[in-house]
Amino acid sequence: MSDKTATKAIGAIAAKLGSDRVETAREILTCYAFDATNIKSLPFAVTFPRSMEEVRSIVSLCSESGVHVIPRGAGTGFVGGTVPVTGGVVVSMERLGKILDIDASQRVAVVESGVVNGMLQREAAKHGLMFPPDPSSLEVSTLGGNVAQDAGGPRALKYGVTRDYVLGIEFVTWEGRLVEPVCPGVGSRRWDPLDSLLTSSEGTLGLITKIWLRLLFVPKELVTVLAFFGTTVAAAGAVSRVLDCGVLPAAVELIDSVAMDCIKAFVDVNIPSGAGCSLLIETDGREGEARESMAVVRKVLDGAGVIDVRVAESQAQREELWRMRRSISPSLARIAPSKINEDVCVPRSKLPDLVEEVNKLGRKYRLRVPTFGHAGDGNLHVNVMLDRRDKDEVRRAEAMVGELFEATLRLDGTISGEHGIGITKLEYLPRQLGPAGVVFQSRIKRAFDPGGTVNPGKVIVQS
Amino acid sequence: MSDKTATKAIGAIAAKLGSDRVETAREILTCYAFDATNIKSLPFAVTFPRSMEEVRSIVSLCSESGVHVIPRGAGTGFVGGTVPVTGGVVVSMERLGKILDIDASQRVAVVESGVVNGMLQREAAKHGLMFPPDPSSLEVSTLGGNVAQDAGGPRALKYGVTRDYVLGIEFVTWEGRLVEPVCPGVGSRRWDPLDSLLTSSEGTLGLITKIWLRLLFVPKELVTVLAFFGTTVAAAGAVSRVLDCGVLPAAVELIDSVAMDCIKAFVDVNIPSGAGCSLLIETDGREGEARESMAVVRKVLDGAGVIDVRVAESQAQREELWRMRRSISPSLARIAPSKINEDVCVPRSKLPDLVEEVNKLGRKYRLRVPTFGHAGDGNLHVNVMLDRRDKDEVRRAEAMVGELFEATLRLDGTISGEHGIGITKLEYLPRQLGPAGVVFQSRIKRAFDPGGTVNPGKVIVQS
Repeated sequence: MSDKTATKAIGAIAAKLGSDRVETAREILTCYAFDATNIKSLPFAVTFPRSMEEVRSIVSLCSESGVHVIPRGAGTGFVGGTVPVTGGVVVSMERLGKILDIDASQRVAVVESGVVNGMLQREAAKHGLMFPPDPSSLEVSTLGGNVAQDAGGPRALKYGVTRDYVLGIEFVTWEGRLVEPVCPGVGSRRWDPLDSLLTSSEGTLGLITKIWLRLLFVPKELVTVLAFFGTTVAAAGAVSRVLDCGVLPAAVELIDSVAMDCIKAFVDVNIPSGAGCSLLIETDGREGEARESMAVVRKVLDGAGVIDVRVAESQAQREELWRMRRSISPSLARIAPSKINEDVCVPRSKLPDLVEEVNKLGRKYRLRVPTFGHAGDGNLHVNVMLDRRDKDEVRRAEAMVGELFEATLRLDGTISGEHGIGITKLEYLPRQLGPAGVVFQSRIKRAFDPGGTVNPGKVIVQS
Repeated sequence: MSDKTATKAIGAIAAKLGSDRVETAREILTCYAFDATNIKSLPFAVTFPRSMEEVRSIVSLCSESGVHVIPRGAGTGFVGGTVPVTGGVVVSMERLGKILDIDASQRVAVVESGVVNGMLQREAAKHGLMFPPDPSSLEVSTLGGNVAQDAGGPRALKYGVTRDYVLGIEFVTWEGRLVEPVCPGVGSRRWDPLDSLLTSSEGTLGLITKIWLRLLFVPKELVTVLAFFGTTVAAAGAVSRVLDCGVLPAAVELIDSVAMDCIKAFVDVNIPSGAGCSLLIETDGREGEARESMAVVRKVLDGAGVIDVRVAESQAQREELWRMRRSISPSLARIAPSKINEDVCVPRSKLPDLVEEVNKLGRKYRLRVPTFGHAGDGNLHVNVMLDRRDKDEVRRAEAMVGELFEATLRLDGTISGEHGIGITKLEYLPRQLGPAGVVFQSRIKRAFDPGGTVNPGKVIVQS
């Protein structure tokens, strides 16, 4: 793809859709050059379609001259999935932002792919409904991005991930063809291999334009507690015991002491002396159920070495605890200017081993490694803090991440709990998939994108 | 594929695995020539592997000479999915029947693909757990078959279908290669496009040998009622109102008067005069919850023209109601020697229209059409009864099914609520998928089975 062909494609798009649909000014391109990884690569242009038809026009005009297209939601991803590594044309979905329908009776929402997760949450709540996937980025990230990455969140423990709520996907293929879902929302069965593939395709198989999502009734009662432990290993051990007690909490989040320190600025939480880690636990259900479930959980915590338990007494206190949890990622900037954020995931029973491994690696490489995440799922967000100007620190951080992935695979875990593969974990994927898995990946990619022009160089690599 | 090459392949299999792994006697072949559709086509041979390795040997020896392989569970399917339409070698999974593990703490079961659904239900129950998918065939059908067809059942309304419980699939490819799942059961996220594709592949992409399944806690309380209505249209109308009342029943099953008549022989149910249809409704949950939910449901039924409501007072009565429901399909033999069983599915609000359409078509074609099924999902099992010796009746029945599918598509429905496509619905599939969907189907088939030797002639057709 030469600049000349790209210029021609961009000209054709502007001529067809209007010049306000295309941006090539460097200051604009810069905003679309990276995601939350801070890995940066400038696109050739950014486009802002306002309808599915405009997405089709953009993609087919690019496809005609082999120009790469990179779909983009809000750019909150942690794996570089939307970074335009080969240049090309970014197709930003931010103006495809309409909730088209909420059918309260069928409990189905139909949305354009640029709708922000939190916007759907609020609209659904008006009908007594909720959309369970709740990544920390929910006030920013788009549903199209959530689907493409199969986003999770704290509630995944009880309610599953985005995949569990996708009823149908409308998408545009590499050549600008439209594919509509089969009977989305009809019946309990969703026989559509394409929906399955597009969900978690990380934008490499097509451009998602419209989504049918299943909603659930909002639980009537929520009880939230923050439980403190002496060490992260002790907290990790308590997680397994909580999950074995016969009630399934809606969330079991771990926050280690480094992360706790960072968020003190955001929330007035009085950490008891001797506390080295905390668990944020929520139960939910109908009236009385959440309280009863939490009573069972608290009995288990008492037997698992808990130091102190704080109960959110009001909705305001509950929201404060969750705001605190969601603030961890941004608050880490207080420690160091950069971080490598990995989300490794192991069988829950091996969580204490993973935590010990992280501690050991932090000491070995002399790095601060605040750790938190969806402990109930065995999923930890390991944040390796660094200053990218310090070349030695960068080298140590990268070596540590490599060892972390090795340890995760050794513990029968997966290198991505929920963030995806993108570009940052690509080199580790073959070990996880095995040779047959890699072959099928590339065959599936070829079936959807024979020219390799849709979000190239990412998780699904062409052979 | 000539008989000579097939004979050679069979000889090689017997030589490698032992002659007890292969059967070619006509009386045995006959048993493996059909499924519940009664469509019959003799295989060349039937094989009985006892391990994944033996499945690999059989498939690779067949693959070398282009002999077709047809995976088979228990043959309870309603669409001819396992009928060996091109002859070939049936690979029966019935001796791959071990439950390998039930991890009560992680709530994960690992099973060989020939394990019968009901066997897992009983083993899981010992740990206070359940596997929600519960097709009527559950005492016969295998989990491999359930996964391949993405089976549903009455509980799908609340708990979803098999797809929602698959954590990982081990399968053998067309050439006898083994593909293992990535970290099955680790975390909430299941990033594995292959699992998604194999589930509901109807045996056309590979041979499933081992499955990791998610289990749920058994609900503490169940309340089951049988509610009678004057007409099927009235009952269908009540379904929407029940589903809009803010509680989600575990099951809402419709049984029309013809079906009720058939099952009277199985169960002592006193049908009130004037009753033309009934709904079997179940609520579940923790202690007190199921009763409270049912109170809400009953208030709705009262306002929706219910004639009479029978409450199952004991576990024995409850089981009797469900046995009755599960007996419908076999009991229809009392009306006519054959039936065409279709499972069309429409948006729930259009259920009364579908029921009227079925009544109209039954009158037009002078056929008895007992109708029942998962009304809460908008999914009806329409049984066109016939005597295949009566050529005129066969012609009328086939014409009626065609019109039924047309009507379903017109009502924005799907031609398969849960039974799949197989061979019986193949000609209607392109209309449902659209041209782009058909293209992707054949590309996916080619990616998995380039030679077209795995269960050929079925839902996923090669272009």
